[in-house]
Amino acid sequence: MPGFAPSLETLIDKLASLPSIGRKSAQRLAFHFMSMSDDEVTSFKEAIDNARNNVKKCIVCCNFSDDDVCPICRSKERNRSTICVVEDPRDVMAFERTHEYSGLYHVLHGVISPMNDVNPEDICIKELISRLSGDEVTEVIMATNPTVEGEATAMYISKLIKPLGVKVSRLAYGVPVGADLEYADEFTLIRAMEGRKDI
Amino acid sequence: MPGFAPSLETLIDKLASLPSIGRKSAQRLAFHFMSMSDDEVTSFKEAIDNARNNVKKCIVCCNFSDDDVCPICRSKERNRSTICVVEDPRDVMAFERTHEYSGLYHVLHGVISPMNDVNPEDICIKELISRLSGDEVTEVIMATNPTVEGEATAMYISKLIKPLGVKVSRLAYGVPVGADLEYADEFTLIRAMEGRKDI
Repeated sequence: MPGFAPSLETLIDKLASLPSIGRKSAQRLAFHFMSMSDDEVTSFKEAIDNARNNVKKCIVCCNFSDDDVCPICRSKERNRSTICVVEDPRDVMAFERTHEYSGLYHVLHGVISPMNDVNPEDICIKELISRLSGDEVTEVIMATNPTVEGEATAMYISKLIKPLGVKVSRLAYGVPVGADLEYADEFTLIRAMEGRKDI
Repeated sequence: MPGFAPSLETLIDKLASLPSIGRKSAQRLAFHFMSMSDDEVTSFKEAIDNARNNVKKCIVCCNFSDDDVCPICRSKERNRSTICVVEDPRDVMAFERTHEYSGLYHVLHGVISPMNDVNPEDICIKELISRLSGDEVTEVIMATNPTVEGEATAMYISKLIKPLGVKVSRLAYGVPVGADLEYADEFTLIRAMEGRKDI
């Protein structure tokens, strides 16, 4: 069966290999790239290059930033006694969207995962420990994902932190707000029962 | 609320403006672009450039092709007496996937749409008419989309073709195979009734 033109097929294949893009979307995108003006394509490619070249890790919290120190770490309005430790910069965004948390963050950029050859020294743990040397930080909230690896990473880090006299806490487990109990998995229900509170 | 790094935000905005990519996918893609190797990014950008530079319209059928004449128009195994007229190169792929149609194609690259300032001379109609000058083609199948504009374009072209003594047909309307009648719209059901056949 003759397909599309080979160089169009190559572009479709490249697009389909990106995360969250299926074959149909890849086709639509490829046709879109074909119909874009030269300026639009140039500005698209520049956006990729700029992000890759300008974005670095904040030297304090390791979150992505265009500056050496990110806006959150620079802010005078944040509560500097609490650090929320997350796996990924997107998790910072998720917490910021709540407009409730006013402390600082630390981005690990991954979780410890011997299966995938990710060891403690491969993620930003030492940068976190070095932030705890003064008296400023009194609590570290472990907000890694509630997965086996996220859990193990939280445990590993909490063992490093506790000797420093800093309180370590973990996000509460339970049923998500607005969820239907019927569809909750058994582990979540067990944790929700264990964590029940008087009302 | 401090967001991502500005150059990362710019990339996310660019990605989110592409068709079929929402905000969440744009974030995932932007992070993916950040984590790609330089070689991967270069080859991605080259794929866009190659598709844009190498792909042209087949001088016969106007389908996208890396060569002057596309593989289908060049093929000795196709039935050269029938031309299936479609709006878009993706429609050619849809018919090819059926493995049933062995004739040729003609890609209009759009439909006549006065509302969007698309006139008959803006789509590949004259290229189609010029293919009908010999005796080779005996039937033209109008396979534009079953929309108001697709319909009007099919009518317009059929009026141009009929004086040339070439048979013009239109795809059958009816209920899609495997669909649930309950969810079929009334226009489709009316057409399906009108087009009913003895069994």
